Amino acid sequence: MIAKQVFQEKISSALENMSFPIEPEELYEPIRYTLSMGGKRLRPQLTLMSCSLFSDDIQAAVNPALGIEIFHNFTLLHDDIMDEAPLRRGKATVHTKWNSNIAILSGDVMFVEACRLMSKAPDHALRDVLDVFYKAAVEVCEGQQYDMNFELRSDVTLSEYLEMIRLKTAVLLGAALQIGALCGGASTDDAEHLYAFGCSLGVAFQLMDDILDVYGDPSKFGKQVGGDILANKKTFLSLKAFEKAKVEKATELKSWYSTREQTEKKVERVTALFDELGIRKDAEEQRDAFYQKAISELNALRADDNKKELFYDFAAKLMHRDR
Amino acid sequence: MIAKQVFQEKISSALENMSFPIEPEELYEPIRYTLSMGGKRLRPQLTLMSCSLFSDDIQAAVNPALGIEIFHNFTLLHDDIMDEAPLRRGKATVHTKWNSNIAILSGDVMFVEACRLMSKAPDHALRDVLDVFYKAAVEVCEGQQYDMNFELRSDVTLSEYLEMIRLKTAVLLGAALQIGALCGGASTDDAEHLYAFGCSLGVAFQLMDDILDVYGDPSKFGKQVGGDILANKKTFLSLKAFEKAKVEKATELKSWYSTREQTEKKVERVTALFDELGIRKDAEEQRDAFYQKAISELNALRADDNKKELFYDFAAKLMHRDR
Repeated sequence: MIAKQVFQEKISSALENMSFPIEPEELYEPIRYTLSMGGKRLRPQLTLMSCSLFSDDIQAAVNPALGIEIFHNFTLLHDDIMDEAPLRRGKATVHTKWNSNIAILSGDVMFVEACRLMSKAPDHALRDVLDVFYKAAVEVCEGQQYDMNFELRSDVTLSEYLEMIRLKTAVLLGAALQIGALCGGASTDDAEHLYAFGCSLGVAFQLMDDILDVYGDPSKFGKQVGGDILANKKTFLSLKAFEKAKVEKATELKSWYSTREQTEKKVERVTALFDELGIRKDAEEQRDAFYQKAISELNALRADDNKKELFYDFAAKLMHRDR
Repeated sequence: MIAKQVFQEKISSALENMSFPIEPEELYEPIRYTLSMGGKRLRPQLTLMSCSLFSDDIQAAVNPALGIEIFHNFTLLHDDIMDEAPLRRGKATVHTKWNSNIAILSGDVMFVEACRLMSKAPDHALRDVLDVFYKAAVEVCEGQQYDMNFELRSDVTLSEYLEMIRLKTAVLLGAALQIGALCGGASTDDAEHLYAFGCSLGVAFQLMDDILDVYGDPSKFGKQVGGDILANKKTFLSLKAFEKAKVEKATELKSWYSTREQTEKKVERVTALFDELGIRKDAEEQRDAFYQKAISELNALRADDNKKELFYDFAAKLMHRDR
């Protein structure tokens, strides 16, 4: 069995060995910058882990794994333009450090590179890998569009929100796993179980994010606790609160979510309202339901139990993180 | 032999039969709008024509041909954002009609669709088709970046300009032809001759554009004659004029190209300077050299002479157009 560190190291060294042309500098320097920013590299590791369930030759999945990571970074680059985000992982975003045009175009080139890497999947899996990848790629864009639409809408439902995070975040985790499985020679069924595992785990992961943003331990949580509340962001918690709140609570909630006020008092009062409405429990139950769905997909998977252990572990760690 | 109209009709009907999801509307409506704007559909026709040189089954090249057209329209969409162009084919551009974010994201989805169509190339050609396509896709982006860089530079050389138009315009024509040939089962050599034919013809085509912009017949030319001069655009003609002009002529040229004046007098005077310097002849000679290079690639191609006739015709018509 391959140890978890092996996957991480394989991805790190493959990323370091990637080289881009020097010219035009305005196109390739932002790509090198983006890829050097780091990140957890979760997705490509999942691709390799998934491949290793079915084959000892994880090399077959390295290029597609890199393709997933480059694609993910491309979406962050374009999303940051659209969201006018000044920072990413504590560093200036490409459109801030250079400009929007350079961010658009170097993003486009990253996307081509992602496709090129994906097309290096082994012959037996090539068509299936490309189908899974392009489907996920379109869905990630749809998710981003819904996310932007939701900012302007006041009638977003919980099920719309769950569908948005499935598209924007979860399907790429699913695709990363399914693509690795296909490269490793998995059956269609097993590859689909891994896709479904990734999708459910991805939604659970995002719900965990929503919860941590309000209830995280400030000494451990990487971002400002209450950041989503201050930004009036629609999350599972805020939408659930709007759904449950009646009379005075509804009025107070509405008033907090319509001010641009950035005070501690706002975070305190909204959190208190969440507490009174039992929102944390609702969110945790929803998260756990997705988590259990993910686990049931793993259970259904026909693969070596020792190797599957890595996935149970991975899922459990994602759920017990504090940042 | 298949008549030229058959290729056109095949592309038109295939494009009309393409369907996109309804939701999210903000993502798919701009795509439908972009594809309904028309255009000459030259590239996908070339793909089918090229396939037909080697195979009677042009159906094998229809999806890749559509992929080329969708990709081309994607690049126009993103270029229009970067160039802040208000109009395209006489209609409001997507970023003007909607906004930049929608233009970025619907462009991204068009690109995915292009890749998806490309991946429907027949098995025997799939890997080669993808390699040719991704290489061209990156080069088109590089060409756009050089084009933007050139706007800010005053020391652009003629050879840099020729390389920029090769990347931005010509390689996609070459790729369209090469991909069709590969789908039709052409040998590597023949597919490369068609690529080289397309690249040289593409550069000749762009040089023709540069010439028509100054010397076109106003009653036939679609755009305003002298538009490039008014916009102080770097073209083969202006760069050649700067290269040749000495003393007073150099001073006058420099002064016209540093004013934002949009008058008939500017067009008249710059055209007169071009005339005095013999620029039209230089540009026509350069165009003809690329045209001859294209023809020599066609000559080297081993295919049915009757079928090749379509290509000689096509090239000749591109060179004798007046708009």
